[in-house]
Amino acid sequence: MAKTAITPTRADDYPEWYQQVIKAADLAENSDVRGCMVIKPWGWGIWENIQRVLDGMFKDTGHENAYFPLFIPLSFLQKEADHVEGFAKECAVVTHHRLQPDANGKLQPASPLEEPLIVRPTSETIIGAMYAKWVQSYRDLPILINQWANVVRWEMRTRLFLRTTEFLWQEGHTAHATEAEAREETMKMLDVYADFAENYMAMPVIKGEKTAGERFPGAVATYSIEAMMQDRKALQAGTSHFLGQNFSKAQGIKFQDQNGTEQLAWTTSWGVSTRLIGGLIMTHSDDDGLVLPPKLAPKHIVLLPIYRNDEEKAAVLPYVQSLKKELEAQLFAETKIRVHIDDRDIRGGDKVWYHIKRGVPLRAEIGPKDIAKNGVFLARRDTGEKAGVERSELVATIAARLQAIQDNLFQKALKMREENTRTIDNLDELLAWFTPKNEKDPEIHGGYALCHFTENKEVDALLKQHKLTIRNMPLGLEDVPGKCIFTGQPTSKRAIIAKSY
Amino acid sequence: MAKTAITPTRADDYPEWYQQVIKAADLAENSDVRGCMVIKPWGWGIWENIQRVLDGMFKDTGHENAYFPLFIPLSFLQKEADHVEGFAKECAVVTHHRLQPDANGKLQPASPLEEPLIVRPTSETIIGAMYAKWVQSYRDLPILINQWANVVRWEMRTRLFLRTTEFLWQEGHTAHATEAEAREETMKMLDVYADFAENYMAMPVIKGEKTAGERFPGAVATYSIEAMMQDRKALQAGTSHFLGQNFSKAQGIKFQDQNGTEQLAWTTSWGVSTRLIGGLIMTHSDDDGLVLPPKLAPKHIVLLPIYRNDEEKAAVLPYVQSLKKELEAQLFAETKIRVHIDDRDIRGGDKVWYHIKRGVPLRAEIGPKDIAKNGVFLARRDTGEKAGVERSELVATIAARLQAIQDNLFQKALKMREENTRTIDNLDELLAWFTPKNEKDPEIHGGYALCHFTENKEVDALLKQHKLTIRNMPLGLEDVPGKCIFTGQPTSKRAIIAKSY
Repeated sequence: MAKTAITPTRADDYPEWYQQVIKAADLAENSDVRGCMVIKPWGWGIWENIQRVLDGMFKDTGHENAYFPLFIPLSFLQKEADHVEGFAKECAVVTHHRLQPDANGKLQPASPLEEPLIVRPTSETIIGAMYAKWVQSYRDLPILINQWANVVRWEMRTRLFLRTTEFLWQEGHTAHATEAEAREETMKMLDVYADFAENYMAMPVIKGEKTAGERFPGAVATYSIEAMMQDRKALQAGTSHFLGQNFSKAQGIKFQDQNGTEQLAWTTSWGVSTRLIGGLIMTHSDDDGLVLPPKLAPKHIVLLPIYRNDEEKAAVLPYVQSLKKELEAQLFAETKIRVHIDDRDIRGGDKVWYHIKRGVPLRAEIGPKDIAKNGVFLARRDTGEKAGVERSELVATIAARLQAIQDNLFQKALKMREENTRTIDNLDELLAWFTPKNEKDPEIHGGYALCHFTENKEVDALLKQHKLTIRNMPLGLEDVPGKCIFTGQPTSKRAIIAKSY
Repeated sequence: MAKTAITPTRADDYPEWYQQVIKAADLAENSDVRGCMVIKPWGWGIWENIQRVLDGMFKDTGHENAYFPLFIPLSFLQKEADHVEGFAKECAVVTHHRLQPDANGKLQPASPLEEPLIVRPTSETIIGAMYAKWVQSYRDLPILINQWANVVRWEMRTRLFLRTTEFLWQEGHTAHATEAEAREETMKMLDVYADFAENYMAMPVIKGEKTAGERFPGAVATYSIEAMMQDRKALQAGTSHFLGQNFSKAQGIKFQDQNGTEQLAWTTSWGVSTRLIGGLIMTHSDDDGLVLPPKLAPKHIVLLPIYRNDEEKAAVLPYVQSLKKELEAQLFAETKIRVHIDDRDIRGGDKVWYHIKRGVPLRAEIGPKDIAKNGVFLARRDTGEKAGVERSELVATIAARLQAIQDNLFQKALKMREENTRTIDNLDELLAWFTPKNEKDPEIHGGYALCHFTENKEVDALLKQHKLTIRNMPLGLEDVPGKCIFTGQPTSKRAIIAKSY
């Protein structure tokens, strides 16, 4: 067995492999606060790139950013009945301000609040309350606003990036004069998410509608993008909700239409979170650690100067520094090439593995012999290919090389999904598809099953029994008649069924 | 009296003028949550620019971003005695997770936490706890990390941007092997803040050390930048703290030095917040509304197409759109020129005043007559100057014109400060300098007084009685011997005394 940088491997223990990849790449770690993580600089660098790209996409589709309060008065959350029911179990509640020593000198919460405040689990209610003030006439619509924020959902079982008590996200909240416009917005943002996932994260996704039971609390319709991880499980990577007039009714977002008639606004909301980083890790990484799609990598290339003495150093370092400048003058995906020189005084092999584990797309080793040939020794993280490359050629082809890595990662992930997706028309086949033959081998169970189904409690119970979930009903695959594989009833609904995060 | 867009004027009621400028520019408003504000898109656009520029400055000085939890366990905050004492009165406390209906069906906080969590008022203790894990050897130092985050300090009296219960800021937290390095870092970041304030906000500041009574709770030394608002009051705009080994001792941030001896690390912290936007507003705005320094304006120039019919529209709009593209290809302060076309169907005069009140640095009106001369009618927000300008000349000079506005705003603010700063050597003169002759006239009291002083309780009481505060002890003015104007004692300490926000 080849030695790998990460122990255990994916095949040995996928969940533990995931934790170890994060540790080896120094992306994040658990804090002393239950369920809350610390995002370390390399992890934050990925999030900064995610933010920058998505923010540009939101602005290109006409949205503006704003910022709303962290706290939601309990009475606001209660205005929409389904909404509060959906979030009541996950709320962190501020009940006091001020600390004061007790008789033993121990500080205790001192001044109770008149009304408890909820640390926002999502902001429909607090933002809707402002929209109700801002909207009077059809001329005030649409409102197209996004915010970047932290949210808190008290989770019992947490996992770095995938499920944490506090997480970072963006939440778009829009209000429209007509149902058609709000539905169009819902689908537009789902498309933005799919575009981002596929073209920046190199993570293929399936767009579809969630079933009634899986809707966002208070929504009329919820759409998601679902990605397949390397253990064949599905990860919900982003959601876009058509809220109808439910929140407008609860919060009084009303306007006078062109005929002077009072109408309720139609609203939407949509969000992606730091969970995307979890998806990124699990889609591309291997048994040597993190693999990053170049468009989101904090650094595109690391230059590793090699020298044995001061004389060699004096030749190598200026060469490396000038190469850095030349590379930085090139563009990839509309940004400057991000170059890092690692001149730390540590063993060469350790240094190479350091950057392999962190997923830097390209590494260039540069010593006196390379300089003699006016070149570098270039290694590619995704394929492991290594070769000497002339300096001028490297500069001229750096963007194309990064794009090739980006494309390769997407194609590899797409192939994996296609090989692990099956259209299934009967229950026995479905159960066989998901039956593990060997707990240690992730090859053993299927990934996605596309099946006709009906929504009812028996079906839910059956799925639960087999630890399966309905991911979504893929767009474009509706209206093909068939029979529910659980009940035998005729139905035209088809869904992706999978194990999931 | 000339009609102004803002009522009241600065002279009539400065605090109310401030609120009305914010309202007229649509920067922010109070939310339904006590003391928490909503930052609206135009206000957020300013904050985005502040973040972008400062973030670049932090990275240029070797810092990386990371993210730490929102919540701090009560026991962590208590580890540094001065620190917790300083913040105990301002803490928002999470005591429960989960909501559950009571006998009347009303939701109530349900599951008490084992240990209350404080919503971070600042993050020294939670970040320090992580540093204690990360630092073992001198090789692990320095740690140079910044985070962009929201913080909460329960304030009794709040004012938009200047003092809010929740606010947004950045907090840098660094750890070093030596005192000298940590002191150097403290001063370096003070310089970054002063550079940003003067060269981007066009807001002159005085760098200096805070007195012992005004130090950050737990710090060995606190330095600030202080700006003068148009009502002559001082605004503390940023602080940089040398924390010595206080927090390292409390949290166990220890390392083995090169000799293998265990040492405590030396730490610093430094921050600026959304308060800067309050300072920006009060430094430059006038009785017609917001005035923005171009480097931080969300839009540099607004183009206002003018036409009376479809035929004129067909000529004007393409001209305006192509001008937008030409302008956007120009650079100002290393960013693309930010151009907005306002083609809303509202009265021309209303539209012009809309952009005056929002402080857009340049406005260009463009109608058939301007196009006939291949030009625009250009107006400058800061001086009110208006003139016809040829199109090609506008494109060629746009960056220089924006720089001229930037420079003018700084010079004007500097002149105001210089005219309202006086070196004062006796108490009577000091009190006269600050005695208002007429409550309604902001000309009446002095701005800054530079005085010799000693730190003691009597001096504090005297200052409090006259509603004066010691802002800071300006750098470079230390060690000039003199006599304390309060006690007559010899001293070489000199401070800026002022009324303040």
